[in-house]
Amino acid sequence: MKVKNQMKANIIGAGSTTFSEHWHYGLREMISQACSSALKSANIGLKELDSVFVANCFAGTINGQNNINALCSDELGLQNCTAIGGGDAAGAYAIVQAANAIMSNQSKIALVIGVEKMSDMPITDITKIISEVTEQEYEASTGATLASLYAMITLKHMKMYGTTEKQLGMVSIKNHLNAAENEIAQFKFKIMMEDIAKSPMVADPIRLLHSAAPSDGCCALVMCNEEIAGKYKDKAQIAGTGIGADFMAVHEREDITAFNSVSSASKAAFAQAAQAGIKIQDISFAEVHDSFSIGEIISIEDIGFAKKGSGGKFIEEGNADLNGKLPINPSGGLKGCGHPFAATGIRQAIEVFYQLNNKAGKRQVKSPEYALTENISGTGATAVINIYKR
Amino acid sequence: MKVKNQMKANIIGAGSTTFSEHWHYGLREMISQACSSALKSANIGLKELDSVFVANCFAGTINGQNNINALCSDELGLQNCTAIGGGDAAGAYAIVQAANAIMSNQSKIALVIGVEKMSDMPITDITKIISEVTEQEYEASTGATLASLYAMITLKHMKMYGTTEKQLGMVSIKNHLNAAENEIAQFKFKIMMEDIAKSPMVADPIRLLHSAAPSDGCCALVMCNEEIAGKYKDKAQIAGTGIGADFMAVHEREDITAFNSVSSASKAAFAQAAQAGIKIQDISFAEVHDSFSIGEIISIEDIGFAKKGSGGKFIEEGNADLNGKLPINPSGGLKGCGHPFAATGIRQAIEVFYQLNNKAGKRQVKSPEYALTENISGTGATAVINIYKR
Repeated sequence: MKVKNQMKANIIGAGSTTFSEHWHYGLREMISQACSSALKSANIGLKELDSVFVANCFAGTINGQNNINALCSDELGLQNCTAIGGGDAAGAYAIVQAANAIMSNQSKIALVIGVEKMSDMPITDITKIISEVTEQEYEASTGATLASLYAMITLKHMKMYGTTEKQLGMVSIKNHLNAAENEIAQFKFKIMMEDIAKSPMVADPIRLLHSAAPSDGCCALVMCNEEIAGKYKDKAQIAGTGIGADFMAVHEREDITAFNSVSSASKAAFAQAAQAGIKIQDISFAEVHDSFSIGEIISIEDIGFAKKGSGGKFIEEGNADLNGKLPINPSGGLKGCGHPFAATGIRQAIEVFYQLNNKAGKRQVKSPEYALTENISGTGATAVINIYKR
Repeated sequence: MKVKNQMKANIIGAGSTTFSEHWHYGLREMISQACSSALKSANIGLKELDSVFVANCFAGTINGQNNINALCSDELGLQNCTAIGGGDAAGAYAIVQAANAIMSNQSKIALVIGVEKMSDMPITDITKIISEVTEQEYEASTGATLASLYAMITLKHMKMYGTTEKQLGMVSIKNHLNAAENEIAQFKFKIMMEDIAKSPMVADPIRLLHSAAPSDGCCALVMCNEEIAGKYKDKAQIAGTGIGADFMAVHEREDITAFNSVSSASKAAFAQAAQAGIKIQDISFAEVHDSFSIGEIISIEDIGFAKKGSGGKFIEEGNADLNGKLPINPSGGLKGCGHPFAATGIRQAIEVFYQLNNKAGKRQVKSPEYALTENISGTGATAVINIYKR
């Protein structure tokens, strides 16, 4: 049976805290702030919501608060709230689950939240903890960190495809340039190649300014079925979703320069989007997972935007710039915005909602019609790709 | 739009590890064992699955393995796997999400997993950690434990409704009696009232033998749409689901002897089940969340099986016994089986699958047609009720 058109899921509202070190706020305050803002933007009252999905990765580990959906229910006074995990891809997974609930008519209007509060920890602990999204027994327990694994991936990509330090740097420079125009971004300032070269080495060849910082943030979306969305001027419809996975541990992969999770997710998402006549060439811009600069380059390749190995060149030629042929991370990406793990996937969707409705201010992409978000976990263990249309 | 009949979700296979202290197995081995067994029971190959949902609560906190869906994908070699949280109710939430995926035609055959490995911890740590499903800022951080909160609930219920120690004890005795016939149960032995009275006091009036023990376990279900289920003899169809929430912290509730989350979830689930003509009087048996004995008594009341305050009497009169008018926890419940948090909700559904297909051996309920499962988190912060028919 084909899913009826009227059951398609749409975004009709969005809100967010700033991404920052929110020492004065707990999880509750951040949830409250982002959700109020999202509901206001959709002109929807709490009582009109019939489901809530909350994405989170570390509330148990960092904040001692397991049962995050119970906390959301309590804070918002709502009944039907489900917690979605998935490491740093949790946000995009939550959007897929909300879409399923809407398409199965179990929900008419859903609130989708991504929240993470990571700053209540010394930086040494946080490095260990974020590495728990990699394989614990084979990788993390041996002392491998997320950055060290990405360093190996980066070196191999440089060796195999001639990807250069300059190209890696240009990813960060572009994303900071875009973030400078994004009011929620934690790192709203431009950087130059010299800043990167002077920034501390994290895991050779990855420097601080090639890396997305852990952050505190909460993002929220209001999603609804086609019938309700019909009454809204500003909206974004989900045209396809895809979830992919690879070997979790980097050493088990045949080719560590490829994210097989991303190519699988891309294939699955575009197979769905094809039903609406959308092809990869139609995508106007994309938000991708640049937790480290090499991540953006590999993502560009494995989503299918550029030939394998040419992601660095794609960046260098300016194609991914805000005025390029396929703007990548107009929001500023994880690098510019900061990376509160489970909030990131929702933030990407918020950017899509703003851009497709021409509400992105100075970082507005020119007349976008179709958009793609790519949210991955760990070193590419899993990936979720969502495709949107106006 | 009414959801078409052909899109209903069904269980067609089930498998489980035993519930135990599995010192020799990691998360991977437990997942592999339960899933192999579930797939075999449905005679389904891995390649026929198009989605996987995994419920988990503590892998990040206890096992240092965040990103549990990536671990499942890796271990099973599957692409489309989503992680569902929800404290000790996570298992039932995962079933709801799989049902939504099937009903929205995003999945035809889904594997639903609940896994928890809790024994790799000293008992003092585990007490602190399981208390993280209560409210961290208001309850857990003050030193309140799950047992101490349930103790207050128990005392108040005794005072308000005359619930007796004998009635509380009879819950445990009945559930151990049933568990003695359940091969996956961790506590496969009968107990007597004297055993309870002699068991250590945990939090007055709760003794060890009123309490479900943390456990290691993995359970898996194969779920599919109506078309595929049509080819199967053994199956259980989901006729209604409901998710409810209450104030998370016990002190915020107007009446601490009631689980408002349970009454909300029950109302929502029966509203759906009514579409199939199912009323509460039609339920043949139920699996409820007896993490502490009082939990079963309050659940019986707030699901709607007995008048408020009469849950203890309901037990004392033998109504909940295996041969009573409404058998409760024929599996042995959380008390008899052990309570590997996120696996419990899946275990309840497995019991329903066995019972409705007359495959429950010596603990078989007589000719059941309709069943209900109730899975709650913390002290009743959230609850999920699923209603099944043959």
